Amino acid sequence: MSSKISNIKTRLFKVPLPEVMADAKHGDHYHFELITVTITLDDGTEGTGYTYTGGKGGQAIKAMIINDFEEVLLGKDGDDVEGIYDFLEWHIHYVGRGGIASFAISAVDIALWDIRCKKVNKPLWEMAGGASNTCKAYCGGIDLMFSKEKLLSNIQGYLDSGFSAVKIKIGRENLEEDLDRIKAVRSLIGPDVTFMVDANYSMTVAQAINAIEGFKDQNITWFEEPIIPDNYKGYAEIVDATGFPLAMGENLHTIHEFEYAMEQAKLAYVQPDASNCGGITGWLAAARLAHKNDIPVCSHGMQELHVSLVSSQSNSGWLEVHSFPIDQYTERPLVVENYRAVAPDYPGVGVIFNWKKLASYEQK
Amino acid sequence: MSSKISNIKTRLFKVPLPEVMADAKHGDHYHFELITVTITLDDGTEGTGYTYTGGKGGQAIKAMIINDFEEVLLGKDGDDVEGIYDFLEWHIHYVGRGGIASFAISAVDIALWDIRCKKVNKPLWEMAGGASNTCKAYCGGIDLMFSKEKLLSNIQGYLDSGFSAVKIKIGRENLEEDLDRIKAVRSLIGPDVTFMVDANYSMTVAQAINAIEGFKDQNITWFEEPIIPDNYKGYAEIVDATGFPLAMGENLHTIHEFEYAMEQAKLAYVQPDASNCGGITGWLAAARLAHKNDIPVCSHGMQELHVSLVSSQSNSGWLEVHSFPIDQYTERPLVVENYRAVAPDYPGVGVIFNWKKLASYEQK
Ligand SMILES: [Mg+2]
Ligand SMILES: [Mg+2]
Repeated sequence: MSSKISNIKTRLFKVPLPEVMADAKHGDHYHFELITVTITLDDGTEGTGYTYTGGKGGQAIKAMIINDFEEVLLGKDGDDVEGIYDFLEWHIHYVGRGGIASFAISAVDIALWDIRCKKVNKPLWEMAGGASNTCKAYCGGIDLMFSKEKLLSNIQGYLDSGFSAVKIKIGRENLEEDLDRIKAVRSLIGPDVTFMVDANYSMTVAQAINAIEGFKDQNITWFEEPIIPDNYKGYAEIVDATGFPLAMGENLHTIHEFEYAMEQAKLAYVQPDASNCGGITGWLAAARLAHKNDIPVCSHGMQELHVSLVSSQSNSGWLEVHSFPIDQYTERPLVVENYRAVAPDYPGVGVIFNWKKLASYEQK
Repeated sequence: MSSKISNIKTRLFKVPLPEVMADAKHGDHYHFELITVTITLDDGTEGTGYTYTGGKGGQAIKAMIINDFEEVLLGKDGDDVEGIYDFLEWHIHYVGRGGIASFAISAVDIALWDIRCKKVNKPLWEMAGGASNTCKAYCGGIDLMFSKEKLLSNIQGYLDSGFSAVKIKIGRENLEEDLDRIKAVRSLIGPDVTFMVDANYSMTVAQAINAIEGFKDQNITWFEEPIIPDNYKGYAEIVDATGFPLAMGENLHTIHEFEYAMEQAKLAYVQPDASNCGGITGWLAAARLAHKNDIPVCSHGMQELHVSLVSSQSNSGWLEVHSFPIDQYTERPLVVENYRAVAPDYPGVGVIFNWKKLASYEQK
């Protein structure tokens, strides 16, 4: 039976957030964008992939998939997931190499992986590596502009929901405010809860070193994106000056960018996001590179999918449970048991959208 | 008088090429896409900027400008060109850092420069540096799949049109074919005509070194994009092994990528393209970096605009006269006198589109 791609349906949803969320570099978030791609093969199998944004770029991603991908993908062998990935990278290369193209390719790749898993009747965590079906998970707030009171009640909410690891945003006007918030959170959660901070690259190298001096006694597991992702050597400067563990990856979109990071940045953790680094194919390539460099592989965003990927790896790090609640629009919101996230066990990538719940947010 | 942005009009045109053109990595080109942005300030001044693609990504660029830029730009101070550039970089950062966003920002930036130049009644070459109003220029064919006969008649056409410098594509299946074509061209043009080759990153480091061994006696001025743009250190390996002058830049979209190239690639020439590296603001930043590194700054594509930029610089290199004839859809197709390209002398960026000629190619 042929497995040619016979239909592709691309949809864009603009989903309001439960409250306004802010970080140090992207400003206020009022909604997130969800772009879904449903691919049908002529043997009748079907899979859905997706990507998301913080509110900008969704129409461009949709336009690229519809105008530049759909026609050339029709008729291609849908089982050749890696071949299609390579094809799309080169097909769109002149306007690609990161940016919108990485998001668009990711959505297509995840749809093809969904089909791949369904065809052999296996869940993604098995197909992607199979090391385990659970992983460590932490809650990441987009809470930079929350009052201290609200910040603490938000963190308490994470603990109450069964998590023992949390991350907060830093990068306020004044370092003292950041340090005060960090101390307040540590004092709330006690010494045993894992605690990370994320500056969304709002600092310079010197500011980051300064900040670390201020919070290094607070048992912080990692400092995420202290400086712009492009300044790989700046990351290494911070590590050389402080010995502090750094993390990044959500803004690395090509395997080359992960290679630069591994070679130059002296990261302690890497956090690829399958929605923007080439889907599952791209995420696994980044994970292999992390493995080769003895670094735990973590994730950014879309926990409902990454739970399967992070669990599947022998160098499994931490799953981020992101504040964009995509999983609330699926048939199986993230499951957490004994402080660990549990990968879905049914065939496919494990993300089945609740189209009814999404319907009113669709953008035409 | 206030100079707030009061209107933005974004258009996409799909313009057929006079014949099918192919290179080693992007396959056949049947048309190019032209995306124009016309900005009006509330003081009545107006400027038009643009970007282009080899046929893919145009709808995504247009979607980004319309959906993510227009609303937030309305009301901003149109005289603050560099401020708006920075604002857009951060505004779209999460889905940006190169790719589609670079093209979209470029079109907006060029429109604002058009207004800036018109307001002080000066041509772009004066405003951008003023070193000269003419520059060296060469014709770049997209001729990889032309028969040898057609390749030679095409080159003869360039000489007949008043040029004394040419570039051909290489990267055919078989190196012998490339070398045979190079020798045939050199023999046609004689020893005094400047001659470059461009592999559109179709080779490995070893293949590139091999190719150079084959053509190094043909007096080739530069070897352009022998390998993928991301492999900066690979460029340096080729230079270390051969001492041969290399060029690239058309695929570098952010100032960080130009910095990596300057630090790591040992380039002899750099070729930023204002349509995809952040417009005139981005091109000038790359040119300053080139100057600091003692490298001539060249260009890629859209000669009708780059003639003013390349001419304006004290470290002026070569203007590429690209095979996408955008200038044929403007009121002043590129002017060449005494083998040098001449920048337009009227106020603005010097590119006035012939909307009538373009009308039938507009995509809604
Ligand atoms: Mg983060
Ligand atoms: Mg080229």
